[in-house]
Amino acid sequence: MKHRIITISRQFGSGGRSIGKAVAAQLGIPCYDQELIAMSAKESGFSEEYVKKDSEYTRTGLLSGLFSDRVYDTPITQDVLWDAQKKVILELAEKGPCVIVGRCADHILKDHADCLRVFIHADDEKRAERIVNVYGETDTAPAKRIADKDKSRKAYYQKYTGAVWGNAENYHITLDSGELGAETCVKLLCELY
Amino acid sequence: MKHRIITISRQFGSGGRSIGKAVAAQLGIPCYDQELIAMSAKESGFSEEYVKKDSEYTRTGLLSGLFSDRVYDTPITQDVLWDAQKKVILELAEKGPCVIVGRCADHILKDHADCLRVFIHADDEKRAERIVNVYGETDTAPAKRIADKDKSRKAYYQKYTGAVWGNAENYHITLDSGELGAETCVKLLCELY
Repeated sequence: MKHRIITISRQFGSGGRSIGKAVAAQLGIPCYDQELIAMSAKESGFSEEYVKKDSEYTRTGLLSGLFSDRVYDTPITQDVLWDAQKKVILELAEKGPCVIVGRCADHILKDHADCLRVFIHADDEKRAERIVNVYGETDTAPAKRIADKDKSRKAYYQKYTGAVWGNAENYHITLDSGELGAETCVKLLCELY
Repeated sequence: MKHRIITISRQFGSGGRSIGKAVAAQLGIPCYDQELIAMSAKESGFSEEYVKKDSEYTRTGLLSGLFSDRVYDTPITQDVLWDAQKKVILELAEKGPCVIVGRCADHILKDHADCLRVFIHADDEKRAERIVNVYGETDTAPAKRIADKDKSRKAYYQKYTGAVWGNAENYHITLDSGELGAETCVKLLCELY
């Protein structure tokens, strides 16, 4: 039997992860986000730190490979990690209903599960405000932090799915959490489930 | 006072127009779709037939201009029509709450009205089935009719808004009507309004 699953793709700072957690709590099903890191680390043999940095990001600069500070940081190791992550996600989908945040789960589960595919986004101003509130300030300006994360998530998604990240066609529903508010997003998704 | 307006952008065959009409009927507000053609024709001086063909489509072939069968079919006349259409849409938004289907109304009303910006899409198979049911068969295969319309709507949207048609970021909500069903889409939009 196919379990009902919600996959949540999200822009950095859109609150997609919190929305996923709230939806899962309301529906009484597990939400996998950070948990996927430990599972993928175990499956692949890489460290959790490496998995965290590479599990849904592709460095996009031309010279990024040359200046990497990590010995096992190559396109090949990223492929190994992708396979491990994919295995973990497919196994979770077999286990039971759940919410899965990020990691191209929408694409991985396309033909394997009864999925509600969701994308959460918000305008740059609201996201900038949110990341400073949630993650604190850093030396890098919020606008640049947002642009960098978007760029590398987009590149990662494109590389492993062949599709355009954030294109409405990939999802059953996309929501502007900045405009609609997180609570409304949670309500709509619980209704749809 | 800003009136509350719903703009519906939609893929050809997704049923976005019907969803717009049903939402407007449930909310007891007018829905403007075909009506915009007569209004824009009156405003611009072009024939309704011309407006219908050019009001949200840009021919995309390299030689399309050379082989056009219409005497006033140039980028300049399309700009004139765009201005007329824009004026009509801005006036409608001043008049009162309503639903507006297509014609880049989401972009035109961006800074002028309290808008809920919606995009409706569906997968090619469901759309092909729908256009044959609704509009009947033609000599052109449904898949090609869909691809052609998408391409020219996308080019038109890009030309006049500078944004990518169908990109989730342009809309407050996007819905896969094929997967969720038209009724659910109508319900969600009425709730959000």
